[in-house]
Amino acid sequence: MNFDKMTERRGTHSSKWDKMEQLFGVSQEDGLAMWTADSDYETAPCVIEAARKAVEHGVFGYSWEYDAYKEAVAWWMRTRHNWEVNPDWVLSSQGLGNAIALCLQTWTEPGDGVVIFTPVYHEFALKIGKNGRKVVECPLKRVGDRYELDLEDAQSRLTGNEKMILWCSPQNPSGRVWNEAELKAVAAFAEKNDLMLISDEIHQDLVYPDYKFVPTAVAAPESLSRLVTLTAASKTFNIAGQRTGNMIIPDNDLRNAMRAKLYQMDYAPGMLAVSMITAAYSPEGAEWADAQIQHLDRNRKMFDEAINAIPGLNSMPLEATYLAWVDFSGTGMTDDEVITRIRDDAKIAVSPGPSFGIGGEGFQRFNLATQGARVEEAIDRMQRAFADLQ
Amino acid sequence: MNFDKMTERRGTHSSKWDKMEQLFGVSQEDGLAMWTADSDYETAPCVIEAARKAVEHGVFGYSWEYDAYKEAVAWWMRTRHNWEVNPDWVLSSQGLGNAIALCLQTWTEPGDGVVIFTPVYHEFALKIGKNGRKVVECPLKRVGDRYELDLEDAQSRLTGNEKMILWCSPQNPSGRVWNEAELKAVAAFAEKNDLMLISDEIHQDLVYPDYKFVPTAVAAPESLSRLVTLTAASKTFNIAGQRTGNMIIPDNDLRNAMRAKLYQMDYAPGMLAVSMITAAYSPEGAEWADAQIQHLDRNRKMFDEAINAIPGLNSMPLEATYLAWVDFSGTGMTDDEVITRIRDDAKIAVSPGPSFGIGGEGFQRFNLATQGARVEEAIDRMQRAFADLQ
Repeated sequence: MNFDKMTERRGTHSSKWDKMEQLFGVSQEDGLAMWTADSDYETAPCVIEAARKAVEHGVFGYSWEYDAYKEAVAWWMRTRHNWEVNPDWVLSSQGLGNAIALCLQTWTEPGDGVVIFTPVYHEFALKIGKNGRKVVECPLKRVGDRYELDLEDAQSRLTGNEKMILWCSPQNPSGRVWNEAELKAVAAFAEKNDLMLISDEIHQDLVYPDYKFVPTAVAAPESLSRLVTLTAASKTFNIAGQRTGNMIIPDNDLRNAMRAKLYQMDYAPGMLAVSMITAAYSPEGAEWADAQIQHLDRNRKMFDEAINAIPGLNSMPLEATYLAWVDFSGTGMTDDEVITRIRDDAKIAVSPGPSFGIGGEGFQRFNLATQGARVEEAIDRMQRAFADLQ
Repeated sequence: MNFDKMTERRGTHSSKWDKMEQLFGVSQEDGLAMWTADSDYETAPCVIEAARKAVEHGVFGYSWEYDAYKEAVAWWMRTRHNWEVNPDWVLSSQGLGNAIALCLQTWTEPGDGVVIFTPVYHEFALKIGKNGRKVVECPLKRVGDRYELDLEDAQSRLTGNEKMILWCSPQNPSGRVWNEAELKAVAAFAEKNDLMLISDEIHQDLVYPDYKFVPTAVAAPESLSRLVTLTAASKTFNIAGQRTGNMIIPDNDLRNAMRAKLYQMDYAPGMLAVSMITAAYSPEGAEWADAQIQHLDRNRKMFDEAINAIPGLNSMPLEATYLAWVDFSGTGMTDDEVITRIRDDAKIAVSPGPSFGIGGEGFQRFNLATQGARVEEAIDRMQRAFADLQ
């Protein structure tokens, strides 16, 4: 359990490291990859051990739905998030993006409007568009150093053609942990407008001390007849490459509709992935996840302190996630100028703010799920790249 | 490389072994699982080694499209099947059933007819039905000890509403290896009726000495503008539980349509699965596959000789696949009587013939991809269960 132990991800089919030159023009050789949301350190020993055991069995024939996996998901929700989940409620997807596609195709039609609160995870809008549905962007309101909902403004943007909300909790990219009142307000908004509520809670385990994540299903049980909760071990345990996420659907009718969709697609999770997730959602996994938060807390404090010391830069205080959301608007530079400096001078690949929708202008997102030494290196490079502002 | 080394698959999430009681009423304790098409022995050492290496890396973050995987698929098609495949033609699915669903959704609409030649892999009809398309069953013609196409009869069954053929080559469950003339005839039938031709070639590597598999794309290059070929390492290397198959699409427009569908679904293969497939499609994998055929050839000869010695039973001579297709109609018994004896007396779980569509009545399918000792045990049980016929 050493999050500072260096790893070399170049040449390992890592999107983050092996594609940063192609996608962002950041030199493969000496670039720092801080864009896509995975971690640079090894996963929990219990997860590796489970994979090792499955590999040594040597027989990889057809596998079935896994009771142990569903029970592990339920155990995790109960012990970590105070959510009593019946294992039967748990279905599996090929990951969060795939789950969103499945939800769009199950509960909306081409042309329907889908509500997102921006800036938000860029895949929301992409997936809505690729499925021929309409993106309805409702901007979050910036209040001091955090975002809040502006449901009055959101209501004014609806046309009556909307069928679904893609909701992100904790919020990516801003790191907000929504409180119960906010979750209840969103649920009421969904009910008022008769919208399905798809709650992406993939960052639920990456919450900093002093903050408390509450599942939408717990805060707003009145929404269960329209609620689908998406979670995964992929961020928490850095196994996104295994392409498997959880869909938790308490409502029978909704769950049966999704199950029919999965049968139609002939989707089932891979056996090694399931073994790994089952092992992750365990007391050993929980201990590792707790230690990871301590590591990330050190990283973000170090990063924020240094970045905020550069005049014009402001890293939004994170309540959750390892994704620092840095506001460059105080520099007076255009997004192009900022990204040129980060790319060519700092040689860091980051996720550009405007890709997160309205409100993302002026921002860049930095992934801090890496070794402390790499955060220090990023700080050093940023200080040099923006040295003239000092 | 010891295909007779015993394995214990009970309690390993194996569908074949752990679900035979629930699905077929065959006792979990002392039943023999010979239904779903996977193997009981370990996969190739090179595949296990690749998985081991990926696991020991310990970092399982997001991965990208894999050039090495696509090149390995192309290498395999060229060296094993004389098919020059451009690596760019290779896309990936969640397995054969998922690929069929993707094809149905990409190139047909609800209500369209989809042609299958029965008896055939039962998932064809199931998947067509689950996607709201119409199954158009065209029976194969039994000529002596094998099936042949009857395209005149097939033509008479078409209504003009058909959009696609799901074609199975080599044929499951009969084990036919279609010759070039037959493949050209199917391609001409597809062209005449303006049908997409989806060629399931998942059993391409399981062909017995004296028979030669030819890809549809090689036999009928004139069909490329309507052809999608589905292959996988899953049967050949017993990695179906990793849920990853290949879709080879030479035509640019067809491939772009499928690529758009994959983006829409946010589908990408899991990283361990890709590592394993890449390792399988190698000289070491080829050597293992050759040895496997020798093993299966011994199994099927032993099985056929003993089964055919029971009066009224006839195991169709296999040209390919490890799936023995046994005709019980000579016994004069009903399907129910036959299955009762196999289930309750022989305690063997098999795939019932009628599930394969018209022409499957009177048959049962036995999976021989197991240790020689288990085939001997199956023979012994069958001889006892049908002892009164001797």
